[in-house]
Amino acid sequence: MKEIALMHRVDSEYCCPLSKNTIEIRLRTAKNDVSHVYIIYGGKYSFAENKNRQEMIRRYSDGLYDYFTVILKLEDLRLVYIFEILCGKKIFFYSEDGLNSNYDFKLNYYNAFQVAYINDADVHYEVEWMRSARFYQIFIDRFDCGNDTKDKSYINLVWGEIPNSKSFAGGDLKGIVRRLDYLIDLGINTIYLTPIFQSVSNHKYDIKDYYKIDSQFGGVEDFEELIAEAKRRNIKIVMDAVFNHVSSDCIQFQDVILKGKSSEYYDWFIINGDVIDMKNVNYECFASCNYMPKWNTSNEKVQKFLIDIALYWILRYDIDGWRLDVSDEVSHNFWRMFRKAIKREKKDCVIIGENWHNANSYLRGDQYDSIMNYAFTKACLDFFAFNKFTAKEFAEKLIELLMRNTYPVNNMMLNLLDSHDTDRFITRVGGDKEKLKCALAILYMYLGAPCIYYGTEIGLEGGYDPDCRRTMDWDKAEKNGELKTLIKTLAKLKKDEILINGEIKIYADEELFRLERSYKGKTLRLTVNESKKIYPLDGNIILASSENNQKKLGCGQFVIERM
Amino acid sequence: MKEIALMHRVDSEYCCPLSKNTIEIRLRTAKNDVSHVYIIYGGKYSFAENKNRQEMIRRYSDGLYDYFTVILKLEDLRLVYIFEILCGKKIFFYSEDGLNSNYDFKLNYYNAFQVAYINDADVHYEVEWMRSARFYQIFIDRFDCGNDTKDKSYINLVWGEIPNSKSFAGGDLKGIVRRLDYLIDLGINTIYLTPIFQSVSNHKYDIKDYYKIDSQFGGVEDFEELIAEAKRRNIKIVMDAVFNHVSSDCIQFQDVILKGKSSEYYDWFIINGDVIDMKNVNYECFASCNYMPKWNTSNEKVQKFLIDIALYWILRYDIDGWRLDVSDEVSHNFWRMFRKAIKREKKDCVIIGENWHNANSYLRGDQYDSIMNYAFTKACLDFFAFNKFTAKEFAEKLIELLMRNTYPVNNMMLNLLDSHDTDRFITRVGGDKEKLKCALAILYMYLGAPCIYYGTEIGLEGGYDPDCRRTMDWDKAEKNGELKTLIKTLAKLKKDEILINGEIKIYADEELFRLERSYKGKTLRLTVNESKKIYPLDGNIILASSENNQKKLGCGQFVIERM
Repeated sequence: MKEIALMHRVDSEYCCPLSKNTIEIRLRTAKNDVSHVYIIYGGKYSFAENKNRQEMIRRYSDGLYDYFTVILKLEDLRLVYIFEILCGKKIFFYSEDGLNSNYDFKLNYYNAFQVAYINDADVHYEVEWMRSARFYQIFIDRFDCGNDTKDKSYINLVWGEIPNSKSFAGGDLKGIVRRLDYLIDLGINTIYLTPIFQSVSNHKYDIKDYYKIDSQFGGVEDFEELIAEAKRRNIKIVMDAVFNHVSSDCIQFQDVILKGKSSEYYDWFIINGDVIDMKNVNYECFASCNYMPKWNTSNEKVQKFLIDIALYWILRYDIDGWRLDVSDEVSHNFWRMFRKAIKREKKDCVIIGENWHNANSYLRGDQYDSIMNYAFTKACLDFFAFNKFTAKEFAEKLIELLMRNTYPVNNMMLNLLDSHDTDRFITRVGGDKEKLKCALAILYMYLGAPCIYYGTEIGLEGGYDPDCRRTMDWDKAEKNGELKTLIKTLAKLKKDEILINGEIKIYADEELFRLERSYKGKTLRLTVNESKKIYPLDGNIILASSENNQKKLGCGQFVIERM
Repeated sequence: MKEIALMHRVDSEYCCPLSKNTIEIRLRTAKNDVSHVYIIYGGKYSFAENKNRQEMIRRYSDGLYDYFTVILKLEDLRLVYIFEILCGKKIFFYSEDGLNSNYDFKLNYYNAFQVAYINDADVHYEVEWMRSARFYQIFIDRFDCGNDTKDKSYINLVWGEIPNSKSFAGGDLKGIVRRLDYLIDLGINTIYLTPIFQSVSNHKYDIKDYYKIDSQFGGVEDFEELIAEAKRRNIKIVMDAVFNHVSSDCIQFQDVILKGKSSEYYDWFIINGDVIDMKNVNYECFASCNYMPKWNTSNEKVQKFLIDIALYWILRYDIDGWRLDVSDEVSHNFWRMFRKAIKREKKDCVIIGENWHNANSYLRGDQYDSIMNYAFTKACLDFFAFNKFTAKEFAEKLIELLMRNTYPVNNMMLNLLDSHDTDRFITRVGGDKEKLKCALAILYMYLGAPCIYYGTEIGLEGGYDPDCRRTMDWDKAEKNGELKTLIKTLAKLKKDEILINGEIKIYADEELFRLERSYKGKTLRLTVNESKKIYPLDGNIILASSENNQKKLGCGQFVIERM
């Protein structure tokens, strides 16, 4: 048996309480190495005498490993367990002392696995609405200009022309309000808004005042109207919290520029020297941008200042979540405080980090609920754009990504194909709409919440920033193009309880990629054909990328079947 | 190459900041599988252009794996890296996307490993004095009775006779005070005191009032005297925080017994019903002890109550640490708050959990500093008592245990052979003093702080609780027996900078167990012979379990050589 592949850890994605008295246990083994796994479990103070035994299911397989899982319902909240593993004709026991051919239950207090007690305060409860959330990301300046009477002198880009990094196109909050019915029609129920706060840039990630709405976007009344009109349509709003850094124009940094070390705000930043030197940048900042100094989030006053901002927008406007900009550069310590403060006020306010990498250490229930799932983005690019993956490898990668985190976290993941920080997906796949369609089908069928970057529904093109931030083409959007029609249909499908609660299975069948979701005996199966072969079809097809997909699945096409 | 064995995780024991700008990186590979590992690293925003490359050292090997490590000094606190691995004639690159024969540095922002920014608030700083701490655990009722004038009517055990669970022998704080010079002579510099607070039991783990010293042990003046006399001798005091549960006699539980759900303390416990039913135990408690109800540490008032207690004893008596009883059953959430409050008042106050199992999820810098290292205890028992291990397997197990945690945590581990909660080690090895001597040598040479359970120095015997809590034999202790002499010598050796700062290497040489510590080109080497062979010796022996060990190492004996 390949012991070197075994993986289990208490208090991790391998052992995760789902509630006060249910817990999901996962064991990783080498792929195709063992035939059966049982969990032998009991109470912390009675395990030597009273043991239960339950078989675990080989639910997932990636390129290297199989993952066996089980959900236990506990009477005693103090859980002790070991694994019994069948490999060929041999039986092994796996505990904290490793793999052995026998196990001395009398000494379990030394070396069994143990969840000493499930404390409610440590349970990562799901934000339930995320399972049925269908996001749409709006980069405000480029979405729609709804206020015809505002001062437009700042606008320097003709709508429809290609933007540069200094372009202002005039999009605003009123523009969003008047497109809410359009979004409803598209099947959207949650908007992720890039920052709305006062700032000199078009993107507003360099915030001057977190309590003011930028006048380019509108006033308080416009935001109130957006909130009210969204609420009326049951559209949730997630806002962008830029708490890693700030604009050098903010009053705090300006005060330090003026007074140096004697400023009360000196310790709000991380400065090497008594006075600010913007030319030689003697302070920490975002990337190498001297106009975006980094907050010192180890300072208790800064902590309170930032958390108060987050609470203000929740308490005043009842917003539904915060997306955290550059959250990986801010301390765990800060996000723990942030979460406590937020959840105390609004338990189902979702917290979504911008971590591009494996963010497991932020996703254990004490910090974020979710991240922008750029690893999913990369996997889709590797399959559809870079030809790096076969269907099998792609399937295995998507499983591997699920295995990075707990089941509750996977249900809250913000899955995306692109954003204001990447090339547009359609551009990366050379304008191939069929590939985008297949990727969209996967996006809506995967565990978690799909997020559509504005313009995807009309095939809006764009390379890396600033090109990925082109203006929306409303003439095109108002027509029912094939991408828009597909997204509408996928959104309807996403309301099915199979896609809300169903288990997921991802695998390859010859050169076909397959993703199944199953619930209460019913299954939806997505098949994507990125091969050069044509495959015959005979299922109960409910959605296809082409109307021709009724008898055969052509190259670059997908079907969804109900089984 | 055995990819299934590879292990690396950011924000874990595999990637641990040692300070604001130094970080230890660890990569696990299959044993003897790869020849060289390099880390390729750079800044988060410049990695595609500017890369450093440094070889990592195969520093540790356990039964299954090799561990390569490197310590990086960083200029840019935003670290990005991947590993380059040589296996045979092949070169592989290992990133979050797994093992590949090439790596596209331009896409590193998707899949390199990344420590986005080292925030000081997340660094687990060592409590530095723990590297040279030499602990002695005192079970007060059985140590020494120093107050001849107190009311002795509660004493029901004649000193020297075998105790049962209800025995009171009369040990007290004055008894400790008058033995401080004895402890100094023994080379002790830190005392771990079992609870001193008001309680009806002999062990006092069922506390009635956390602000009162139990009158059996003495009064405030006695404790003040102990603190002052210990301080005068540079002896540190670590106290026992029993925050999982309390005595049913405490005023809060008594109030709930009286008033049921209308008691202001009802939510301080976890009760199933409107009134307390002690007979059917309708509330959570420690183990199945109805007289020790469990605190509801999710309640903010309970949190404040308990943390205030911990602070009181620090602020009033300047104690040096808390050992946390049954800490694994209390929430992570509570220990995070606890740590913040403690460290704010006294940064070098050590926090030691009573977790018998792998406690990695408590030892990441946000909760405890250390645990009572019962896994070390078990490994020593497996080697010396249970004949479960060969020398090689024992060496590999001790390495495996080090690899569970970060380097700072390993330096703060409280290593022990036995305690008030286990059989005495000498009894487990059938009274074989030579085995105890070898184990003591390992205890003092391993990374972390050795903890001697009172009486070990005179070979005090005892099976499981209550037998392991026999009275100290002072007639014996005042003589210089061989165990006492050994502990004194090991304590002197432990002051050597090699044992404070030295790297550790543990391995087997034929049937010999070896543990080396090296620092600045100097090495101390411990050799333990548990085989049936006699080995010749020719080194510079500085300590041996027997005076005969100058030319040959007999069975069951050890030597320490300076090299």
